[in-house]
Amino acid sequence: MHYKLALIGFGNVARSLARLLVRKQGMLKSKYDITFSFTGISTGRHGFAVNPDGLDIQKALEFVESGKSIASLSTIQVEDSFAVIKASSADVMFENSPVNTQTGQPALDHIRTALNLNMHAITANKGPVVHGYRELTALAESKGKKFRFESTVLGGAPVFSVMREAFSLAELTSFKGIFNATTNIILSRMENGESYEDAVKFCQSIGVAETDPTNDVDGWDAAIKVAALVTVLWDTPMTPQEVNPTGIRGISPQMIAKARAEGKRYKLVCSAEKNGDKVEASVSPQLVDSTSSLYGMMNSSTGVTFRTDVILDYSITLSEKPGMQGGPVETAYGLFADFVCVL
Amino acid sequence: MHYKLALIGFGNVARSLARLLVRKQGMLKSKYDITFSFTGISTGRHGFAVNPDGLDIQKALEFVESGKSIASLSTIQVEDSFAVIKASSADVMFENSPVNTQTGQPALDHIRTALNLNMHAITANKGPVVHGYRELTALAESKGKKFRFESTVLGGAPVFSVMREAFSLAELTSFKGIFNATTNIILSRMENGESYEDAVKFCQSIGVAETDPTNDVDGWDAAIKVAALVTVLWDTPMTPQEVNPTGIRGISPQMIAKARAEGKRYKLVCSAEKNGDKVEASVSPQLVDSTSSLYGMMNSSTGVTFRTDVILDYSITLSEKPGMQGGPVETAYGLFADFVCVL
Repeated sequence: MHYKLALIGFGNVARSLARLLVRKQGMLKSKYDITFSFTGISTGRHGFAVNPDGLDIQKALEFVESGKSIASLSTIQVEDSFAVIKASSADVMFENSPVNTQTGQPALDHIRTALNLNMHAITANKGPVVHGYRELTALAESKGKKFRFESTVLGGAPVFSVMREAFSLAELTSFKGIFNATTNIILSRMENGESYEDAVKFCQSIGVAETDPTNDVDGWDAAIKVAALVTVLWDTPMTPQEVNPTGIRGISPQMIAKARAEGKRYKLVCSAEKNGDKVEASVSPQLVDSTSSLYGMMNSSTGVTFRTDVILDYSITLSEKPGMQGGPVETAYGLFADFVCVL
Repeated sequence: MHYKLALIGFGNVARSLARLLVRKQGMLKSKYDITFSFTGISTGRHGFAVNPDGLDIQKALEFVESGKSIASLSTIQVEDSFAVIKASSADVMFENSPVNTQTGQPALDHIRTALNLNMHAITANKGPVVHGYRELTALAESKGKKFRFESTVLGGAPVFSVMREAFSLAELTSFKGIFNATTNIILSRMENGESYEDAVKFCQSIGVAETDPTNDVDGWDAAIKVAALVTVLWDTPMTPQEVNPTGIRGISPQMIAKARAEGKRYKLVCSAEKNGDKVEASVSPQLVDSTSSLYGMMNSSTGVTFRTDVILDYSITLSEKPGMQGGPVETAYGLFADFVCVL
């Protein structure tokens, strides 16, 4: 089977996905008899391109990475992301535009458009999950298509698929974890005496924190991930605003030194618990001691522990090696796994 | 759909499975439209029973747990486990007879018999996995049935299913973990100053260690789990003898005290790595420091870290709470998940 793919959003993650697909194309062909071509690409600042016969993906990567527009690759005149989706005739649309925590747009409309055109929709964008999970899942079902979002939490490490496949028979009662790498790196470095400001600068220098680190340090990135897990795993809509996170700005070097002297650590703890029909969720800095599974999760490690009625405390941890920039490739793997899974 | 089930082996795990199936029968009916009956039970010391119309499972549990034979429940004269499999007309056979590390028997023959009779075969027994994975998988495929064994490592926590479903697109390069709860409890307690002998006695008192703890303390239980993972995940047959484990008998209180003074711990580390076509595996006590993901895994916690070409160091940890005897129920969950998965 041949699949036409549209890439809506062509940043680090989408470009890693394109490279991963190309790298794995032999395996996809031999193991699953899958071939593919890229028929539409929509970028934020480097234009739009559609070719129903397949775009030259290497050129698209090269153009964008050298700051050039991809418009010259297009065989059809397209002026925005929605036109790309429509003209691409794609079988699968990958949505990787920037996250909008407040509204989920424009990702939400991209996914609506794709599903309505009978495409599978796969995203690493948390916005449409927290703002449209039920609607988009129902729309996908009505079209016989899938809406998938493995890469929205814990990079691209399998979490949603594990819960969907392996824990479908269990009742989830609570989860707890560390979901934001930036704040975990900052807290880890502050333990070693670095100032908050220098730790933020370090995160910016390795590309894990934005120029404005608000989204990470005030807990919003963690909160939208908590909201996404709650929304999906308990089919209970929740927004990051409802999670109402507390970030790490209030954690002083003195507090960290005192904790350390007592054999404890501050972690930005994400948690949620279901009691009856009610779900309580929170994101806040908490002191953990060495008996906690979160205690050993340092630097960019993230992870989640699920408690169910049958398996007690099943944890998934993603530990990145120092110096290995796994981020975009791992996130791309989640999109890639979703792709093969929906076919 | 109605499924007839045969339980070959009716110890703690199989009885937990029976209870779990009964507890979840409403969910199975409403969510999957599955109903079931137990048509055959084979016990080690309490006889055999077959009733193609369904045995009274509550009575079977009660009889065995009060030391009585289940033969009076049988509507057909059956004298051994093979006769139970044949007469049960089951759709699914659960194999939970005692592990035989050396030969995999009689589990291997139980599973051959069941598959040849067009039953799915599900086991928590590591023997047939290391001694018959390729043969049994091929036999199952030729019959359009499944051979599954989720519960053979890490209790019943999802490991094989995660690797099969979520990592099918990745290349596994190595894994490392702690697979044996008994030795981990012993080492944890020795760190707190308890003698080896008292720690073994404690494990026996809570039911995690056998009267003869050889299988655990000499590393054979860990080795057969390593062999099972290697055999399945790399489709490379390996026996526990080839793993050639070193156990924990050589770890003295003095060594543990010295390690502790240096901020380190002994763990019975299980690992395997693939280089080209060659797989190297080992089980041996190793010193780990606080930067290791194994360092924080204390008492009955077990876990495994997988390294792949795309996701670096994805860890699954099963941490049991002190005082909660999760063992048989968790193992039963793996069998239960396999059951719903094969249908």
